Amino acid sequence: MDKAVFFFGNGKAEAGREDRDLLGGKGANLMEMTNLGVPVPPGFTIACNLCDLYLASGKVPNGLHADVENAIARLEEAAGRRFGDVTNPLLVSVRSGARVSMPGMMETILNLGLNDDTVKGLAAQSGSPRFAYDSYRRLLQMYGDVVLGVPFADFEHLLAAKRLTTGAKTDAELPAESLMVLVQEYQALIKTVTGKPFPHDPREQLWGAIEAVWRSWTLKKAVDYRRVNHIAETPGTAVNIVAMVFGNLGDDSGTGVAFTRDPSTGEKRFYGEFLVNAQGEDVVAGIRTPEPIERMAQHLPQAYEDLLRTQALLERHFRDMQDLEFTVERGKLYLLQTRTGKRTAAAAVRIARELVHEGLITQPEALQRVPAKQLDQLLHPIIDRRSKPQAIAKGLPASPGAASGMVVFDADVAEARGARGESVILVCDETTPEDFHGMVAARAILTARGGMTSHAAVVARGMGKCAIVGCDAIRVNAGNRRFTVGETEVVEGDWITLDGATGDVFLGDLPTVPSEVMQVNAGTRKAADAPVYQGFAELLAWADGQRRLSVRANADTPHDAQVARAFGAEGIGLCRTEHMFFDGDRIHSMREMIVAHDEGGRRRALGKLLPMQRGDFEGIFAAMDGFPVTIRLLDPPLHEFLPHGGEEAKLLARRIGVTRRELMRLVETLRESNPMLGHRGCRLGVTYPEITEMQARAIFEAATACQQRGIVVKPEIMIPLVSTVEEFRHQRRIVDRMAEIVRTETGTRVEYLVGTMIELPRAALTAAAIAKEAEFFSFGTNDLTQTTLGLSRDDAGRFLPLYVERGIYPEDPFQVLDVDGVGRLISMATADGRGSRPALKVGICGEHGGDPKSVAFCHQTGLDYVSCSPFRVPIARLAAAQAT
Amino acid sequence: MDKAVFFFGNGKAEAGREDRDLLGGKGANLMEMTNLGVPVPPGFTIACNLCDLYLASGKVPNGLHADVENAIARLEEAAGRRFGDVTNPLLVSVRSGARVSMPGMMETILNLGLNDDTVKGLAAQSGSPRFAYDSYRRLLQMYGDVVLGVPFADFEHLLAAKRLTTGAKTDAELPAESLMVLVQEYQALIKTVTGKPFPHDPREQLWGAIEAVWRSWTLKKAVDYRRVNHIAETPGTAVNIVAMVFGNLGDDSGTGVAFTRDPSTGEKRFYGEFLVNAQGEDVVAGIRTPEPIERMAQHLPQAYEDLLRTQALLERHFRDMQDLEFTVERGKLYLLQTRTGKRTAAAAVRIARELVHEGLITQPEALQRVPAKQLDQLLHPIIDRRSKPQAIAKGLPASPGAASGMVVFDADVAEARGARGESVILVCDETTPEDFHGMVAARAILTARGGMTSHAAVVARGMGKCAIVGCDAIRVNAGNRRFTVGETEVVEGDWITLDGATGDVFLGDLPTVPSEVMQVNAGTRKAADAPVYQGFAELLAWADGQRRLSVRANADTPHDAQVARAFGAEGIGLCRTEHMFFDGDRIHSMREMIVAHDEGGRRRALGKLLPMQRGDFEGIFAAMDGFPVTIRLLDPPLHEFLPHGGEEAKLLARRIGVTRRELMRLVETLRESNPMLGHRGCRLGVTYPEITEMQARAIFEAATACQQRGIVVKPEIMIPLVSTVEEFRHQRRIVDRMAEIVRTETGTRVEYLVGTMIELPRAALTAAAIAKEAEFFSFGTNDLTQTTLGLSRDDAGRFLPLYVERGIYPEDPFQVLDVDGVGRLISMATADGRGSRPALKVGICGEHGGDPKSVAFCHQTGLDYVSCSPFRVPIARLAAAQAT
Repeated sequence: MDKAVFFFGNGKAEAGREDRDLLGGKGANLMEMTNLGVPVPPGFTIACNLCDLYLASGKVPNGLHADVENAIARLEEAAGRRFGDVTNPLLVSVRSGARVSMPGMMETILNLGLNDDTVKGLAAQSGSPRFAYDSYRRLLQMYGDVVLGVPFADFEHLLAAKRLTTGAKTDAELPAESLMVLVQEYQALIKTVTGKPFPHDPREQLWGAIEAVWRSWTLKKAVDYRRVNHIAETPGTAVNIVAMVFGNLGDDSGTGVAFTRDPSTGEKRFYGEFLVNAQGEDVVAGIRTPEPIERMAQHLPQAYEDLLRTQALLERHFRDMQDLEFTVERGKLYLLQTRTGKRTAAAAVRIARELVHEGLITQPEALQRVPAKQLDQLLHPIIDRRSKPQAIAKGLPASPGAASGMVVFDADVAEARGARGESVILVCDETTPEDFHGMVAARAILTARGGMTSHAAVVARGMGKCAIVGCDAIRVNAGNRRFTVGETEVVEGDWITLDGATGDVFLGDLPTVPSEVMQVNAGTRKAADAPVYQGFAELLAWADGQRRLSVRANADTPHDAQVARAFGAEGIGLCRTEHMFFDGDRIHSMREMIVAHDEGGRRRALGKLLPMQRGDFEGIFAAMDGFPVTIRLLDPPLHEFLPHGGEEAKLLARRIGVTRRELMRLVETLRESNPMLGHRGCRLGVTYPEITEMQARAIFEAATACQQRGIVVKPEIMIPLVSTVEEFRHQRRIVDRMAEIVRTETGTRVEYLVGTMIELPRAALTAAAIAKEAEFFSFGTNDLTQTTLGLSRDDAGRFLPLYVERGIYPEDPFQVLDVDGVGRLISMATADGRGSRPALKVGICGEHGGDPKSVAFCHQTGLDYVSCSPFRVPIARLAAAQAT
Repeated sequence: MDKAVFFFGNGKAEAGREDRDLLGGKGANLMEMTNLGVPVPPGFTIACNLCDLYLASGKVPNGLHADVENAIARLEEAAGRRFGDVTNPLLVSVRSGARVSMPGMMETILNLGLNDDTVKGLAAQSGSPRFAYDSYRRLLQMYGDVVLGVPFADFEHLLAAKRLTTGAKTDAELPAESLMVLVQEYQALIKTVTGKPFPHDPREQLWGAIEAVWRSWTLKKAVDYRRVNHIAETPGTAVNIVAMVFGNLGDDSGTGVAFTRDPSTGEKRFYGEFLVNAQGEDVVAGIRTPEPIERMAQHLPQAYEDLLRTQALLERHFRDMQDLEFTVERGKLYLLQTRTGKRTAAAAVRIARELVHEGLITQPEALQRVPAKQLDQLLHPIIDRRSKPQAIAKGLPASPGAASGMVVFDADVAEARGARGESVILVCDETTPEDFHGMVAARAILTARGGMTSHAAVVARGMGKCAIVGCDAIRVNAGNRRFTVGETEVVEGDWITLDGATGDVFLGDLPTVPSEVMQVNAGTRKAADAPVYQGFAELLAWADGQRRLSVRANADTPHDAQVARAFGAEGIGLCRTEHMFFDGDRIHSMREMIVAHDEGGRRRALGKLLPMQRGDFEGIFAAMDGFPVTIRLLDPPLHEFLPHGGEEAKLLARRIGVTRRELMRLVETLRESNPMLGHRGCRLGVTYPEITEMQARAIFEAATACQQRGIVVKPEIMIPLVSTVEEFRHQRRIVDRMAEIVRTETGTRVEYLVGTMIELPRAALTAAAIAKEAEFFSFGTNDLTQTTLGLSRDDAGRFLPLYVERGIYPEDPFQVLDVDGVGRLISMATADGRGSRPALKVGICGEHGGDPKSVAFCHQTGLDYVSCSPFRVPIARLAAAQAT
């Protein structure tokens, strides 16, 4: 057997941070701190792979007993205390610690080593029998539950009874005498349930706890968590055994948590909270309000000085903002944990940038420090916190954004009030697929239960809608149409405001403001006054220096094109021409075209559309001067343009001179069972070539006009929904002919490319043939996902959230590219296409173009560019750099 | 240059039938006959690749002039006549002849060699100036049109004028004098249009004709034909130059066509027609009624004896039924063509069987002689011809089947009358996509124009609906709602009957009878009295001996299972359980299940369905004793089972105790935008596991009951619409659990397999993972085609026919498997799946399982079985044998 047990103590450890895979994150960092000379209680770690061996064989691996015994001896020596020693007992904590943090998923046991004898020693040593028996009571409760399988609720019953009979309002008010009785009652409970007495031998306790930690690896909640978060099943968790230190031994003791920089703004200042004469649980229970960390200088000046020096050392050493837990026992500082601190997007950007300027990290490292997806937070409107609003509750930040609305408790009500144009926020214990219509109608969702992958969370993120879930401070009473938070009652129709980025819930309709980045982009704030913007701009400039993938935007109007340029888009990857036909009068001409009886009628209506479309293209080409613009020809089924009754139908019938009844019959004949798989895309251009002719003419005339004005135009004409090279050939012939005609008419030659959208599996499967004719491919991953998975985006709401929640799909495939299925098609098509035409340009223009994981896939697959909505261009730029 | 010109004459040819690729089918067979000693007029053939060289360079290949000159000299010697000889002129025909026959697509010129001088010699020699000038007139007309580009209509105008001024009713009544004038007028027309006189030099005529044949290879109609029929563009067509013989030189001359066996029944008897003193065109024009071939014994006894000997020789030599063209010139027989004769399905089966019994061909050869698809004809009801009905017209047999109905001329009328339950037949010039709804409503379609790949033909075949197209004898007057055939007038509402297998159109509502095969299967006719059945049964027995692929049937009821067994199915490849829920009372329980508010309600309703479903399975297992039965769990979207209003909705609302309005709201929430891609397949079983539980229990309880009765049951449970292995795992766990429960309850162990339908591209792309869990794959090629091509079968009617007509898709992908796209997925998935599980069973159960080309693909890809509808089982058995 390889070395299984690693000791740390007395300023020296048998491993370090580089051993995270072997010893888990917690253990490796404790050792690293020890080696750095940071005060850490002594202890030892049993390596992760022992967990695997135990679970496979069902027994403690050979030789481990001796190794642990050896480590205990070293620990006793380092701590100056002995296991089971009646006067000076060694107490330890036993905690899990896997390679990847799994918060709350596994078990912890504190105060191990106490028994009816040693508790007396602890009482004597600490001078506080209450402290000693409360510590013992906690051990019995944790051990009974976790190791021995005694129902936790039974312990709680006994504890509550004790409070009631003594008149104590909280556990902290229970006197020592009551705790001594409780300790007897707990032991009797354990004996009744298990048939055996609580083990008084500290070694027996220790092995029970170690095995319980190992077994907790296979708890259902832990298995589910790993599946959802793609964490490997092997090798299991390490076990950390650390000598206990106590912050509640008097006014020369205390405990706290701190960050080396402000996790909210990223500002470089030591930031945190502490409590004198308290232990960690007291902070969590919220009975006493912690003090700002600076106040520690008065209470515990030496320990504070040590802490300041230590935090600086740790940040320099780990080269990132750290999140620290510490305890001061009788004036002496102990670090119990250090890890990379979580932070907001603004803080992430600022910290990354400043660490580079401080010379601590390189530019490429800085780029890895900011989760690309978080950049989104810097663009959305934010709650105007100048009025310092106070949150009434905090839940899990499931889907970012700020939203205000009137509270409703029922999906049907949400739908009805939403339909009246009211802003509503749906509040409930948790959502089910039956609530989908209400979620669509609501501005935001707030649930009392459920985690980051609950139905509400998944659906809301899918819809880009603000949501806070698992907000367990609120009690929903849907029957009486109200919820309460403590004393506060909120009834149906009251306004609340949610901050989906932080999980904060506020009363009232709070004002929002554009984010700092948007203010600078809009010219309403100077870059010099905007530290977040500066970090954002500089980070993206570094990203541009690193990335190989080009980033374009999906934009359909000159305005969107300008926004995209401001965000750094290097061209348009998808310009959807159909959106141009909905504006104002255009829709009428479009409808005339659709309902025309013959080609002549269609050509007349198209003739009216030509100048409008040409004008749009001129604006877009001008905004993208020098950059390529990919224009997709008409794609959606025609019936999407038609009225479905009412005044509009009457108007159209009059314009084209038929009865309304005849018109509605025509509309009916255009209806399709599965419009997604129907008469759309290039199928329209093949059956009505005059549409393709008009669009190609508009493009070439606009390009010619711009070129004559000195604008550099690079039109790339994209044929949609190609399933076979024959369709492409048919449409390309028309495009090339129109180019020739416009060239003859104007005497100006415009360079252009003709390519296709790969959005059907068959196009990907026959890419070699298509690439012989097409100059570029753009993967339309929205439709490609729908057809590859046989999954309609419009209909998946009934089961997709359940699928993600249960891990049947690892993620929503419309959010994160399905690498195994859709990704395989993309890889095949790219390779086959370049086999036919080595210079083939390849990109993607589905919504995945703005998702970091999907961008990384595109980079690995060797694509030339990604294209996404303008607001996601910064994300894509950063993700593309991170992928290299 | 390789040898380019091949001579035949005087009983010896420079090539033979094995040179078809070099010389085309016609030339190769003429040479083969020459070598056999069969009397064939002498001639020579210019090889196919010369066409290619000519088209590439635009000029006659070097050296060819000399070769042709040399061949002409040999031809003159063999014929005993000379080109341009005034007294004894050599006349020739010039015809195309490609490797693959392209009937009607390319050009022919007859009587080449005539001019103002030689025509006199022909007149003198034949003793008939009328004959000579008529021949000359035809040459001028053909040559002027084909070689010189003079509009054909102009010649027709002059000819018609001549009939009118002379009072001749037909061309045949025109006297020699008129023809002499016409010849002058034709020559003047040619000079006016082309600016040059008609070439009198026979050599100049010959080269003009040869080049025209070559150029005709690139005529649009020929190019389209090749694309649609997958005929290669190179090397082009051969040119056959053959000495003319004339059957119209007196009563010792004649012409005819004959088959070595009856092409309609396959009976072994010499069968054909002939005309004394006539040429081929007279037969076609239908002015004189031909006589049965036997009568030739009286008119031309020696020639008839020669013909009998020759036809026997040719059939023996070519080892198949031959279609012959012959001419008798002054008592001497000449064979002008021999080729494999076209035949009905019944004839094909009988001929193949009898040729084996006669020792002419082997069993494997016999299997190749019957197009598998044709077997269909032997199963459909046929027109009862005992009353000897007379067809009023004949068109192209575009889609088989017999149908009677009232004539309508408008798609809307067809729809309206069809909706009233009337049988209608849609008659029009040709159909367009706008007629689709009328075609759906009609029993059959009859068009005056369009070919075998016209819109009407493609759509009708797609729908399995009888259709006759290109029936140019009928004149449609849709405005007056009538059509005429000669003197016969048919008005809207009159009954007609179509025979889609022959193209015959009949007046009235003719009775139909079950086919011979169906009569034997049904026990109403003895096999001994049924020669077609005997051939059918014996051929399929041979096929079973050859094939490697197993053939199963798609069957949902015990009755279908029995029918499938009678057709030789070796199991059920697809039993759709949803069909079981529509019968009688079951639909009510099913609806209760769907609208239940919670799992409890669903379980109560499912409890009512359980015994019914178990009963169905018992019947199916019993019918398939010893053979595997693949049962697909519930697949369609639930709203398909719900009422959409009316009495049924009222009834359901009452049963479940809600208002009708509430019910309709519920129905509305189940509606989907794209149901094909919606909440269906295993997605139902994942969201409502109790459905899978009930179905699995029904299967295992039925299997157990049958097994206890001594029936050998082999259930194969199929999970539908799997997109990821996680779905499969989820459902498989439920199935396995139910198996265990039923085993415990009954004490009986039933062996079973659990597998999946591969019907989504993602399932195919992740087959390696799925095969680790699944014991079999069944490709559901209907849905797989829809998703791979992004093509909804329900909606494709608007453009798919156009796609096939224009060759954008080579064939309807729902009829013939799309090998490049869907086929590539199938190959990948099969290879990947067997990589994970070498023993994986693989089959297909889409409608392609009954299409011969698709069956061949399945064989090549190494599938284990195909499954198709019971009526297609014989086709699949034969196709599977042909594929080996």
